Amino acid sequence: MENESLPRHRRPTGLRTFLFGAPYYPEHWSDAERADDAARMAAAGVNCVRMAEFAWDRMEPVEGEYDFSFFDEQVECLGGVGIRTILCTPTATPPRWLSFRYPEVLRVDAGGRRMEHGSRQHCCTNSPAFREQSWKITSAMAEHFAYSRHVIGWQTDNELNCHFSLCYCEACQRAFREWCRRRYDDDIGALNEAWGTAFWAQSYGSFDHIVLPYDRPARANPGHVLDHRRFVSDSTCEFQREQVEILRRAKAEWLITHNGLMPHIDYAVFARDLDFLGVDLYPAFTEEVHSIPYAADRARSAAGNVLVPELQAGPGGQVGYIHRTPPPGQMRLWAYQAVAHGADGILHFRWRTCRFGAEEYWCGVLDHDNKPRRRYQEFSREGNELRRIGTEILGTSVDVAAAVLAEYDQEQAHAAMPLGMPSPSEQARTAHHYLWRRKLPVGIVEASDSFDGLKLIVLPSFTLMDEALAWRLTGFVRAGGTLLMTAWTGTRDRFNRITDLTPPGLLAGLAGVTVEEYGRLDEAENAIELADGTSAQAHKWYEVLAASSAELLGRWRHGHYAWALAVTLNRLGAGRAIYVGTYLSEANAAALLDLALAEAGVEPILPGLPADVEAARRTSADKTLLFLLNHGDDPQTISRLPAGRDLITGKKISGQLVLDPKDVAIIA
Amino acid sequence: MENESLPRHRRPTGLRTFLFGAPYYPEHWSDAERADDAARMAAAGVNCVRMAEFAWDRMEPVEGEYDFSFFDEQVECLGGVGIRTILCTPTATPPRWLSFRYPEVLRVDAGGRRMEHGSRQHCCTNSPAFREQSWKITSAMAEHFAYSRHVIGWQTDNELNCHFSLCYCEACQRAFREWCRRRYDDDIGALNEAWGTAFWAQSYGSFDHIVLPYDRPARANPGHVLDHRRFVSDSTCEFQREQVEILRRAKAEWLITHNGLMPHIDYAVFARDLDFLGVDLYPAFTEEVHSIPYAADRARSAAGNVLVPELQAGPGGQVGYIHRTPPPGQMRLWAYQAVAHGADGILHFRWRTCRFGAEEYWCGVLDHDNKPRRRYQEFSREGNELRRIGTEILGTSVDVAAAVLAEYDQEQAHAAMPLGMPSPSEQARTAHHYLWRRKLPVGIVEASDSFDGLKLIVLPSFTLMDEALAWRLTGFVRAGGTLLMTAWTGTRDRFNRITDLTPPGLLAGLAGVTVEEYGRLDEAENAIELADGTSAQAHKWYEVLAASSAELLGRWRHGHYAWALAVTLNRLGAGRAIYVGTYLSEANAAALLDLALAEAGVEPILPGLPADVEAARRTSADKTLLFLLNHGDDPQTISRLPAGRDLITGKKISGQLVLDPKDVAIIA
Amino acid sequence: MENESLPRHRRPTGLRTFLFGAPYYPEHWSDAERADDAARMAAAGVNCVRMAEFAWDRMEPVEGEYDFSFFDEQVECLGGVGIRTILCTPTATPPRWLSFRYPEVLRVDAGGRRMEHGSRQHCCTNSPAFREQSWKITSAMAEHFAYSRHVIGWQTDNELNCHFSLCYCEACQRAFREWCRRRYDDDIGALNEAWGTAFWAQSYGSFDHIVLPYDRPARANPGHVLDHRRFVSDSTCEFQREQVEILRRAKAEWLITHNGLMPHIDYAVFARDLDFLGVDLYPAFTEEVHSIPYAADRARSAAGNVLVPELQAGPGGQVGYIHRTPPPGQMRLWAYQAVAHGADGILHFRWRTCRFGAEEYWCGVLDHDNKPRRRYQEFSREGNELRRIGTEILGTSVDVAAAVLAEYDQEQAHAAMPLGMPSPSEQARTAHHYLWRRKLPVGIVEASDSFDGLKLIVLPSFTLMDEALAWRLTGFVRAGGTLLMTAWTGTRDRFNRITDLTPPGLLAGLAGVTVEEYGRLDEAENAIELADGTSAQAHKWYEVLAASSAELLGRWRHGHYAWALAVTLNRLGAGRAIYVGTYLSEANAAALLDLALAEAGVEPILPGLPADVEAARRTSADKTLLFLLNHGDDPQTISRLPAGRDLITGKKISGQLVLDPKDVAIIA
Ligand SMILES: [Zn+2]
Ligand SMILES: [Zn+2]
Ligand SMILES: [Zn+2]
Repeated sequence: MENESLPRHRRPTGLRTFLFGAPYYPEHWSDAERADDAARMAAAGVNCVRMAEFAWDRMEPVEGEYDFSFFDEQVECLGGVGIRTILCTPTATPPRWLSFRYPEVLRVDAGGRRMEHGSRQHCCTNSPAFREQSWKITSAMAEHFAYSRHVIGWQTDNELNCHFSLCYCEACQRAFREWCRRRYDDDIGALNEAWGTAFWAQSYGSFDHIVLPYDRPARANPGHVLDHRRFVSDSTCEFQREQVEILRRAKAEWLITHNGLMPHIDYAVFARDLDFLGVDLYPAFTEEVHSIPYAADRARSAAGNVLVPELQAGPGGQVGYIHRTPPPGQMRLWAYQAVAHGADGILHFRWRTCRFGAEEYWCGVLDHDNKPRRRYQEFSREGNELRRIGTEILGTSVDVAAAVLAEYDQEQAHAAMPLGMPSPSEQARTAHHYLWRRKLPVGIVEASDSFDGLKLIVLPSFTLMDEALAWRLTGFVRAGGTLLMTAWTGTRDRFNRITDLTPPGLLAGLAGVTVEEYGRLDEAENAIELADGTSAQAHKWYEVLAASSAELLGRWRHGHYAWALAVTLNRLGAGRAIYVGTYLSEANAAALLDLALAEAGVEPILPGLPADVEAARRTSADKTLLFLLNHGDDPQTISRLPAGRDLITGKKISGQLVLDPKDVAIIA
Repeated sequence: MENESLPRHRRPTGLRTFLFGAPYYPEHWSDAERADDAARMAAAGVNCVRMAEFAWDRMEPVEGEYDFSFFDEQVECLGGVGIRTILCTPTATPPRWLSFRYPEVLRVDAGGRRMEHGSRQHCCTNSPAFREQSWKITSAMAEHFAYSRHVIGWQTDNELNCHFSLCYCEACQRAFREWCRRRYDDDIGALNEAWGTAFWAQSYGSFDHIVLPYDRPARANPGHVLDHRRFVSDSTCEFQREQVEILRRAKAEWLITHNGLMPHIDYAVFARDLDFLGVDLYPAFTEEVHSIPYAADRARSAAGNVLVPELQAGPGGQVGYIHRTPPPGQMRLWAYQAVAHGADGILHFRWRTCRFGAEEYWCGVLDHDNKPRRRYQEFSREGNELRRIGTEILGTSVDVAAAVLAEYDQEQAHAAMPLGMPSPSEQARTAHHYLWRRKLPVGIVEASDSFDGLKLIVLPSFTLMDEALAWRLTGFVRAGGTLLMTAWTGTRDRFNRITDLTPPGLLAGLAGVTVEEYGRLDEAENAIELADGTSAQAHKWYEVLAASSAELLGRWRHGHYAWALAVTLNRLGAGRAIYVGTYLSEANAAALLDLALAEAGVEPILPGLPADVEAARRTSADKTLLFLLNHGDDPQTISRLPAGRDLITGKKISGQLVLDPKDVAIIA
Repeated sequence: MENESLPRHRRPTGLRTFLFGAPYYPEHWSDAERADDAARMAAAGVNCVRMAEFAWDRMEPVEGEYDFSFFDEQVECLGGVGIRTILCTPTATPPRWLSFRYPEVLRVDAGGRRMEHGSRQHCCTNSPAFREQSWKITSAMAEHFAYSRHVIGWQTDNELNCHFSLCYCEACQRAFREWCRRRYDDDIGALNEAWGTAFWAQSYGSFDHIVLPYDRPARANPGHVLDHRRFVSDSTCEFQREQVEILRRAKAEWLITHNGLMPHIDYAVFARDLDFLGVDLYPAFTEEVHSIPYAADRARSAAGNVLVPELQAGPGGQVGYIHRTPPPGQMRLWAYQAVAHGADGILHFRWRTCRFGAEEYWCGVLDHDNKPRRRYQEFSREGNELRRIGTEILGTSVDVAAAVLAEYDQEQAHAAMPLGMPSPSEQARTAHHYLWRRKLPVGIVEASDSFDGLKLIVLPSFTLMDEALAWRLTGFVRAGGTLLMTAWTGTRDRFNRITDLTPPGLLAGLAGVTVEEYGRLDEAENAIELADGTSAQAHKWYEVLAASSAELLGRWRHGHYAWALAVTLNRLGAGRAIYVGTYLSEANAAALLDLALAEAGVEPILPGLPADVEAARRTSADKTLLFLLNHGDDPQTISRLPAGRDLITGKKISGQLVLDPKDVAIIA
């Protein structure tokens, strides 16, 4: 398949139809209340619903007694008007008979509290008893629904790890021991060496003695913590993989996805078992315009284009909060923003707002009283547009020339010893935000992905470093790329031990500097003087650099290290490596990243765009789609446009366009 | 009995003597230290003490071996100088032998921590073993003291639920299952329907599978939570009822009370088993002048006039804090303020400050060194005044024309899903505060109480609504009353499920509006333009109203809903219903409640009063008492007085009066 | 021994060599990495290392199988270049086989959470199983190393109680019961009387029924809490004493120390088992110049001169924070500041920064990459200076004329019922800070120590008072001393019960006043008018004083108690007692303590010193050393010097001296 040759973040989903619809919960409604749902959905352009992820009790009301008739009926009824179903394994909400009969399945937190029935996600995905139940219900559903022509695919579970990822139950304790045994080839000495258990006399005489990391009474060992976080991700992947294998065996053509992104999952590994990844988007949590681009790009870094199984439709509220109500046009704009950033399908959460339960104020397309109001009108407009233009979008993927690297282990290593400093992902977000504001073709790229097509790589304080990655980064620079790395880069090996090399360790040759001193900075004393006489605010940290081959880009202005090197540039082959001896922040991103942009030759998607207008580009071998989104409250005039046609309006565009507030154009 | 025909909040206690005194702890003192207590009390006007609520270990030092001789002696000694005793069941502080022998009685919190001996209230009132011990000690005390002519009544336990109301012990788990079985007539399907367990697959196959609501790992179901809070109140009532039944059987003429108000008790139900309710008043916690009116009025809403078993005498301090020391005159002013709001008896906490234990800085009338200082002088003045005038006060109750409605279930329903919004009781306090500042005859009235005599009812976001209450409110309006309701009114049924009707649901006809959109507001965008051109600040929330029959009182000024209806008035019969599409706050109470006052015809108790002077009126069939209290630091001239006599000074009053700082007049 | 006649805080350590070096962890490094450690240490002037406190697993990898060969080798290798070793009992970090085989040794916190292997200090020093293991490893080490001429002494354990002092395990429960039984001579009535268990019916029928104080669900009894804190200190002392006895039996000439100061240890008792106390100094936690003087003086109060087993070398960082990097010169200045305040030895923590474990960013003399940089240069300068001048310092101790009293029980009594008010030690720090800023010979003195040589005693709200201490304080005043006491003094007996005397109780005669009223103050209303017309800010509290024999020093200016006495002075014999009816604060310390200084005749160490220059004086029978330390960033000229010689430079000094930034002079 041709996609295999693309970088992972550039792969389309392979969907033949642009999916549009909503998660649907027929089990929450009476026959009367559901009566005209199918018709109203079809009228709104819906071609797909997601069902059954919270309905285990309906399908297996008593252990071993399955009854799929209710969902059979729903699938048929919707199928009758052309709406396909994505079913879910229902393992996020196990029925009460399960936790009652097998109480050992209940998760336990770090404080020893056992979770309980009464909300969701209370069962441990490492519990053998729960694994067996997961196997049984998945097998029964797969076997049963394999015969339905309307079921096109599956979502595994639901938002794995969203409430609870660090379980301390007995099953997890045992599973972690076995994970360690496998990782260290049954050699306990190797584990002791890797974790540095010589510190505080923590050495283990046997894998059977290993404990989960408790931070109790004092802080745990960083090597221990990192391996535990790897174990949590690996075992979550394994839980899903068991379900995926059952589903694939039952019907090979089913599409399989999952809805992230949640803590303690390495999605680059996790997504290997899926056809494509799903990403749930609730931008009203932060109300930032940058929310969807960043989340969608993070998801794409794992597996390319995505499905959005849940995109916010109205305000969402729970015990402590309620979001602001999205104003008119906002919901549709969110949808197109997701598409611009790689979505090949959009389901708005949820069809109708529930009248009971913990999400009764998680507002759907329809209100509690089942009356269609402006959210339904907007949904309908969007659905009918996408029905028309969706296939023109499929097959393209998002252009990336400026990449911020990401890696699960880097984030976990940081979390094990943060020192109050920004994490790799916090800096990644800062860098992504600035490059996005500059209207550049920016993306998040996994360190293990191909760097083909990239001109700029930002390496946000990757402390873990190995020869292979150092080699690939060096190759990228030699070949003409620009690399910018920030404080603490390359200080550790892959076991999360600090290296015996002077930082940036394996990248010292590439950077052309070593770090000779470092320390915390307070806000008053944080200026770096750049070569052009301007200054950049340092963020929380200073590093005093000694150049082996690098040249000066910035110097420290204060403290006993005043005049020492703070930012340097090293030319190597056709490219250059910039070392920044502090952290990225919203305050310094422009000054510091501009140093790299001055070198990297990354072109904006469209020059001269107004601040409120976002641009993104999706391309394929034979097609270029230019997305323009007006996030502001005023009409915006956009010039210097390529000639083309607006997919949505069908109008011809030549040179200029006026975009209404909250409106979008897709120029093909 | 004639009182039965009065609204519940208007019923006098039925006491024949105005009670004055203090809680007294002879068990904390040596014979020498107690020597002249009785004489000094008598000199101060004391006619009543409360004793023994924390002395179980003294009366039953070994299980089953009772020794009441110490308290016999105290009761006799005090009785000898005319001081009567209210005894207490001592179940708030079980002796150590009890928790040692029956450790299953210890409460368990939501985090699984078992309470321990060493403070108080550590035993679970649902524990069968503890219930048995409660039965035994209550029976033994009742039988023994039935023969004492000086014991006039009882307080059950002490401040039930003050430290701990949500217990998760095994006994509570079992009791909750039985409570559910009874409530749903042994029909588990009815429970599943009521709670909406279709959400998140929470359905129960059996009452034996029901769990307490844990919020673990995610939020619990709101229907589940509301029923649990009802269970907690019901089972607390049941615990008390067992004691009350024993006491009534032992001696029918005993008066029985309890000292509230504490969490998770529906006092309207709880007080049915009592002769009258007690309310403990510690105004120095908030230092607000409004503290006593609000607390006393809340207590009166349950059962009419009250006893104050504990009224703060000096500063109170515990581990993290100490109150400010009340200045001269403050203690007496608090007492009269409580009387003005329905107290038929005042006990100042406590006679002498304890020299040990967790309340050693909870300062009483006498200091640690047993020397009488200004607190004793003030107590003495107050006691001797009340000895003189007390009987003239008894038999009257507090005038209420403007009522804020209250209901236990409304508050609990809100707490189950607050969305960061004000609760009914928070809005009730705000409304009560404003109406009180306006010197109106304001009160709190239970929704189940009679509305006779009321001209204005404020319904503070009662989300739970049923036909019966909707009918009674409609009747109130038709008959000429003014009703003001606020955001979210009528959105739920009695199971705490959201209704399928457009809000305000069952009250939509009465209000003459429906709510078509809603959302959170931030501070900058919160203006409602009123019909007279002035504006009111919205509070945290907007609702867009569509009028069926209501007329405009206010419009939204900002946002995409600008010019939509925000406040409306609907005329029905002789009255009118005002719907306010936001929450009440200190900032908007005046503007919004004035809309209702303009219609309701509620007269101030006395027009033209200075701001620092509070007015209240107690009346009976043949008597009117006008209370005037100067809370300020300057003398205040009060005019337009009715002719009469000041009960305290005995002076004749005609038209005008100068009230000293912290002084009070009661004009009969 | 002559020292016995000195006040405890004036006793030198008795060391013959000034110790200089570092804690050393050879077990963290490979042979190659350690290769030139001994030589580099020797070159830097090191004569002592501390080893093995975290290496139990290395010495006893399997239960009962000892292997000391590794440390034998290290001790020999270092000894070969003249570096002596202080070994440690390794009980702060028990090996995994121990907690695996004897899980009952694990500590349990107040919330019931059991500690776990994976950090340190997780085993309970009251556990019989752990005590036995402590006995075995200590015995084995003592026996083995008794034959090494290079091992000069021991540190017991490591920072006992630093992470965890209040254990609620079963062993602690039992041990506390036995402690109570012994304290109250098996008389449970005496315990009930002492704790005041008559309050809240808490009385115990048997010592077997006693519980640890849980604060659950409400606050615990203050008498119970104070006795528990005494128990925690006593049992920690007992744990150490068992180790000390083994070591003393093995080799009488060994020096034995421990590194404090940590919570819940009464070091005045604890240090009786030691030759001298150690105090770990990490001034970068607070970055206050006063940090070392206060900590070192607190340590000296227990046992005189100290060793500093750990003095910060670089920034220290852990999960939530990292210190600022000490600037050039700072590390050496800290060392001399410690010496000025009584250190007879300095070890800088640590030799080389670890590459793994929870302290991987606790930076040592050498960096992770093992390269010597400025910290090594500074260490080396300091080491070589001290090699030269160290013996001239030994035998002297720190001059104290103005003392702030300290007592473990006072602090614990306060913590049991703080009322939101400053603790004795908070006020002690405030008073010490001010007197130190005034360049006076200030110190902390234990209440049980001799008052010989003192002119001023500050008694910071000692609430617990007995006849003996009252008598000694009175004697101090009669003999010409000046005593200043603050709010709440003398309000309690030694059981932490409030006295029946009017405060200040047993000191009322000495103070010449009684406290007639008291209360919390808010910030706006806090002025005391002093006799000279100036004013002092009261701090959080007012007391209204009635003078029996005292004279006026200050009056209250506000409130209903305006014009009442606030500060008084009572002359008695040749001295005077000042009573301050509020708490000391940074804002009022100058005004209030100056009242005492005006009377006390305490001379500054050197008059006219610049603000940035600190002075301290160490003396012996035949020697006076004047320490001058420039904490500022500018050179400072110091005048009025006594004639002498600067020990460090060897230069003669007469009258004047210019001190460089961060530099020190020691004038002999
Ligand atoms: Zn688990
Ligand atoms: Zn319970
Ligand atoms: Zn313990």
